[in-house]
Amino acid sequence: MKHFTLSDIQQMDRKFRMNFVQSLPGFKTANLIGTKDLKGQENLAIFSSVMHIGSEPPLLAIKMRPVHVARHTWENIQETGFFTLNYIQPSMLPNAHQTSANFEKPISEFDACGLTPRYSSDFFAPYVAESTVQIGLKLAETHTITANGVILLIGEVQEVWMEETGLAEDGHLDMEKLNALAISGPDRYHTTQFFKELPYGKLM
Amino acid sequence: MKHFTLSDIQQMDRKFRMNFVQSLPGFKTANLIGTKDLKGQENLAIFSSVMHIGSEPPLLAIKMRPVHVARHTWENIQETGFFTLNYIQPSMLPNAHQTSANFEKPISEFDACGLTPRYSSDFFAPYVAESTVQIGLKLAETHTITANGVILLIGEVQEVWMEETGLAEDGHLDMEKLNALAISGPDRYHTTQFFKELPYGKLM
Repeated sequence: MKHFTLSDIQQMDRKFRMNFVQSLPGFKTANLIGTKDLKGQENLAIFSSVMHIGSEPPLLAIKMRPVHVARHTWENIQETGFFTLNYIQPSMLPNAHQTSANFEKPISEFDACGLTPRYSSDFFAPYVAESTVQIGLKLAETHTITANGVILLIGEVQEVWMEETGLAEDGHLDMEKLNALAISGPDRYHTTQFFKELPYGKLM
Repeated sequence: MKHFTLSDIQQMDRKFRMNFVQSLPGFKTANLIGTKDLKGQENLAIFSSVMHIGSEPPLLAIKMRPVHVARHTWENIQETGFFTLNYIQPSMLPNAHQTSANFEKPISEFDACGLTPRYSSDFFAPYVAESTVQIGLKLAETHTITANGVILLIGEVQEVWMEETGLAEDGHLDMEKLNALAISGPDRYHTTQFFKELPYGKLM
């Protein structure tokens, strides 16, 4: 086995370390976050760090580094309280990935990246019409990580839109039918195959 | 598209809602968390909610619901400050999944589930010898979610052990070579294929 100490990691070249440490948590899902400011300016940015926090109430956590490309997203969420999560499918690449470029207002990443905003009558922030799963969230609370200033947004799910065929009988979302992509590290995309479903462990 | 409002989600059958909401964040990675109490009693439990928080210092967040099967893990981390994350491979199933059963001390899930504890000379908590990636972490800070009492542990990476062939030249971990499994929802496992690597977006 190869061994890396904390000191080895600290001495890695910056880009190498970023790839290495961002790979450690393994797979996550590629999402676009859609927001709009109070003047109506839309914003779209790629995020891959989303975590389930609870089901009752339905809560998700999103990691936000309030600099560079995430800045407009964070400003809009603070201003309005609403944002959307939209799955990225293979057919949406490389356009969706281009939202990580540093566009300045008044350019909308929807236009710049050839993606279509879609509105639900009950919800303020824009969805991405091309996405098979579209989740509307309301900011519930925030936590700031002392060690590095990263912000964790906790959002309460307000509504979910999804392709009908993607819902399994037991409530699971069928990731393969929804063409969901897994990401590892900062920029590696993977397709998936269903392998196995295992019931919650019973004492052997 | 199928539409679910917050009220629809709240009215779902409990198990259906759990599958549904836990599926929303998409893919994550199957990990075993290894801990040991001060008397030397080892504990192993399956967790799938791990998030990258930062690379400098290297930080990961783990969601902890301090009840049932996670209770011993959380007690041991509070007592000692150390824990390990260990990737689950297909050959480790269904054993690794059985760690979600409610074993009582002095039973070790290592023994009960047929997995092998391994110690690094520099680290207190046990690794899982069968895992292709083994990460040693030290508790750095905790955050409690107001809405539901869930605890987010922020751990600083102290060392990483991994199969040599799994490290790409640019620092990425090669998930397919490492036989990493993706999980969706509470209990669906997926294998993956590399699809595409896209550079950080440049302004078009």
